[in-house]
Amino acid sequence: MANTPSREKWQSDFPRWFDWIIEEAEVYDYGRYPVKGMGVWMPYGFQIRRRVLDILRDILDSTGHEEVLFPLLIPDHLLRRESEHIRGFEGEVYWVTHGGFEELDVKLALRPTSETSITYMETFWIKSYKQLPKKYYQVVSVFRYETKATRPMIRLREVTTFKEAHTVHDSFEDAERQVLEAIDAYKKLFDSLGIPYMISRRPDWDKFAGALYTIAFDTIMPDGRALQIGTVHLLGQNFTKAFDFRIQLADESLDYPWQTSYGVSDRVIATLIAVHGDDRGLALPPTVAPIQVVIVPIPSGSDEDRRAVIEAARQVAGELEASGVRVRVDDREEERPGAKFYYWEKKGVPLRIEVGVREAREGYLTVARRDTLEKVKVPRSGVVEAVKRLLDDVEKRLEERAKSFFRERVVRTHSLEEAREWVEARRGIAEVPWCGVEECGLKMEEETGAKALGSPWPREPVEGAKCPVCGRDAVTWLRLARTY
Amino acid sequence: MANTPSREKWQSDFPRWFDWIIEEAEVYDYGRYPVKGMGVWMPYGFQIRRRVLDILRDILDSTGHEEVLFPLLIPDHLLRRESEHIRGFEGEVYWVTHGGFEELDVKLALRPTSETSITYMETFWIKSYKQLPKKYYQVVSVFRYETKATRPMIRLREVTTFKEAHTVHDSFEDAERQVLEAIDAYKKLFDSLGIPYMISRRPDWDKFAGALYTIAFDTIMPDGRALQIGTVHLLGQNFTKAFDFRIQLADESLDYPWQTSYGVSDRVIATLIAVHGDDRGLALPPTVAPIQVVIVPIPSGSDEDRRAVIEAARQVAGELEASGVRVRVDDREEERPGAKFYYWEKKGVPLRIEVGVREAREGYLTVARRDTLEKVKVPRSGVVEAVKRLLDDVEKRLEERAKSFFRERVVRTHSLEEAREWVEARRGIAEVPWCGVEECGLKMEEETGAKALGSPWPREPVEGAKCPVCGRDAVTWLRLARTY
Repeated sequence: MANTPSREKWQSDFPRWFDWIIEEAEVYDYGRYPVKGMGVWMPYGFQIRRRVLDILRDILDSTGHEEVLFPLLIPDHLLRRESEHIRGFEGEVYWVTHGGFEELDVKLALRPTSETSITYMETFWIKSYKQLPKKYYQVVSVFRYETKATRPMIRLREVTTFKEAHTVHDSFEDAERQVLEAIDAYKKLFDSLGIPYMISRRPDWDKFAGALYTIAFDTIMPDGRALQIGTVHLLGQNFTKAFDFRIQLADESLDYPWQTSYGVSDRVIATLIAVHGDDRGLALPPTVAPIQVVIVPIPSGSDEDRRAVIEAARQVAGELEASGVRVRVDDREEERPGAKFYYWEKKGVPLRIEVGVREAREGYLTVARRDTLEKVKVPRSGVVEAVKRLLDDVEKRLEERAKSFFRERVVRTHSLEEAREWVEARRGIAEVPWCGVEECGLKMEEETGAKALGSPWPREPVEGAKCPVCGRDAVTWLRLARTY
Repeated sequence: MANTPSREKWQSDFPRWFDWIIEEAEVYDYGRYPVKGMGVWMPYGFQIRRRVLDILRDILDSTGHEEVLFPLLIPDHLLRRESEHIRGFEGEVYWVTHGGFEELDVKLALRPTSETSITYMETFWIKSYKQLPKKYYQVVSVFRYETKATRPMIRLREVTTFKEAHTVHDSFEDAERQVLEAIDAYKKLFDSLGIPYMISRRPDWDKFAGALYTIAFDTIMPDGRALQIGTVHLLGQNFTKAFDFRIQLADESLDYPWQTSYGVSDRVIATLIAVHGDDRGLALPPTVAPIQVVIVPIPSGSDEDRRAVIEAARQVAGELEASGVRVRVDDREEERPGAKFYYWEKKGVPLRIEVGVREAREGYLTVARRDTLEKVKVPRSGVVEAVKRLLDDVEKRLEERAKSFFRERVVRTHSLEEAREWVEARRGIAEVPWCGVEECGLKMEEETGAKALGSPWPREPVEGAKCPVCGRDAVTWLRLARTY
């Protein structure tokens, strides 16, 4: 049986664990940068982020999305064009008012999201249904003057990794098809990172400002709180009407096109860290680990023996590198092997290979897995195949562990009292039958002290159950959780 | 002899040509975005930009630079810490003063460059000479409230592709060695893009605000004006002293470390477009062309013939793609072949393959080169090798043409009058003997109506020449040009 590392601190004191590990593993420096809610991606964290973005770009590019880059600054009047939208964002927009020593004629907003500026430019670029569907995306910083408590990578004032996609369609039906495509893209993203999720249709009172409806991906953090990690919005014609953006349709009539938008953020990387970690620190899935294998030479004995050990370590590294494995030899002389083990475990490197005198002589290597801390002996001659197999295995096991944790934290109950207890005990998400009426939903939020995440998407049947608030027939489930 | 396309408009009316091609080829939409000095990278332009950045990242990563990402916003007091620096930038900083409905306690600057915020964080990260040298870089937007006339990709208020590197060293000597490494990195970048340049040590009155000295790369635009495309600054201890950033040295004493910083921007891509283009539009070097080969089927005759043509086009595309060539089949039915040729020439696709009935039947293909507009016949069976050879050849020829244009536009003269005429006639850069005294340099700027780019780096001998202003012995050359 695998000797799995403890997850006690990880779970019982998750926010502290998270703050500790992103600093200790040099992922993201937060709290020392002198502006609240803004942090620095350090080199190691940046490499994780880069690999997550590579996966995301591959998924989007291969489904006909085109990457663009829009200006950061949106003039006041542009941001105000769609009235629901500005109502939703106005309280948290940062404003640039001065350039040099002058006051600007027009206030400029730091983009909170880009529906307005992108729709504005689309009016110049898109004239006919023949150009549709059109799918743009960009990866940019967005800014929110958060009044709630900020948290590194989770609730920021500068969200530095906002991937926003914006699409245009010639019919409502095609826009709804795009919603499905977007959901599919995000499923692929989260699946490839081993991140468990559930998909909900957000209640109307919590949809995106300016959307007809919002579909959201939520996951569960180690402390049982839900975290929104992706959203997909059917915008309808709200923005195209506000911008008087019309196109020629197949029947030669002019009409407003339909839009969707969808986004993911730094929270994807925060989740990657959260769901796979343990008390020793990060445990990175090999697909996104900047270093997949660290080789620690353990020299001892005669000078000749010591040289043989270093030489063997370098040879193994060379072979692995040549076959596409990201490998690092830690031959620092001033650190002891134990300190190195601890250091690389904290950084979440999936495999560690120890090379000592015996290994150099006897033709085998000792490989330690980060996920289970197990050590296995592999023959020196078959090290490349063994490492690749083990990397696959670590990847799968991390995913399974995360999914099993997630499954245990979702409960379905007909009792609002049970739901309240589940949420209060920080167990996770509770699903309760719901009649679909807003008033009852809000009441359930109030009585459980939880936030309504919405209803299962796609819709799931509720047989013979009653809404616990009004007693009418339930038409769906309402998901309730404490959230970040 | 190659039938080279005309470069008359390209040269005689360069700014208009540039505005025309970035819009027509869908590279960068400028002037329609409703904030002056800010534009949008469109999908095609974004793909060019992405490939330029890939090359740049490869060069930096392979020389031990680590990518990071710092916040956009710099608090007032941080930006003011180094006095020369703020004096140089204060007139062009954008300020965020409000969040939501509140006025902020501390004004926040949109980064004009990141020396201050990066040095501040380095005080936490770097404690000992053992960690040095340290080389960070990031690719970000920077903002300058330009009071001069703005120009797309050349003089912007939002520079969206600013690659800034920041390094730390334990001695002046090591920082100077880093200056050499940085120059070498930029040489590699420009060489790989076929961009000609000269390297100058900027005169003291034009160095970076806060630097000991600045080394700059300049190129020459089609209209004879010089453009700065890269700079390398030796910062010395100016910022480390201002931030009281001290480290432990090898002899256990504490001292301020030494820094350099260096940057390139969107101007690299502007230059790529400018130096290789012609009256028909873009001519992209194959290394960075989003599409390297476009295949235009020219169906005619019987239904069977038409199908054979389309089929042949797809097969060729499949083979090229399988061997790593970026290829696109333009099988749009509503466009005529002539219109397609024109369209892809404008977009600068290096090679076009035409597949008609004869080609499909007789086992050869017609390949048109974008650089010379020559058409060559290649055997169908050897198309992959032929295309790869032609791509290499286009790459080389574009580079040679750009370099030969550049060489003809640099003149060395002992006469200030000749220099003035050269510059006034928009011929390019003139080099004049100089005694090295600031007063004489400023006088030469005044008399030629040009800007002094500085002196050749590395220093070049001037034998027996006199400074044309004061008549003393010249110690170097002064480069003079109209600039963007």
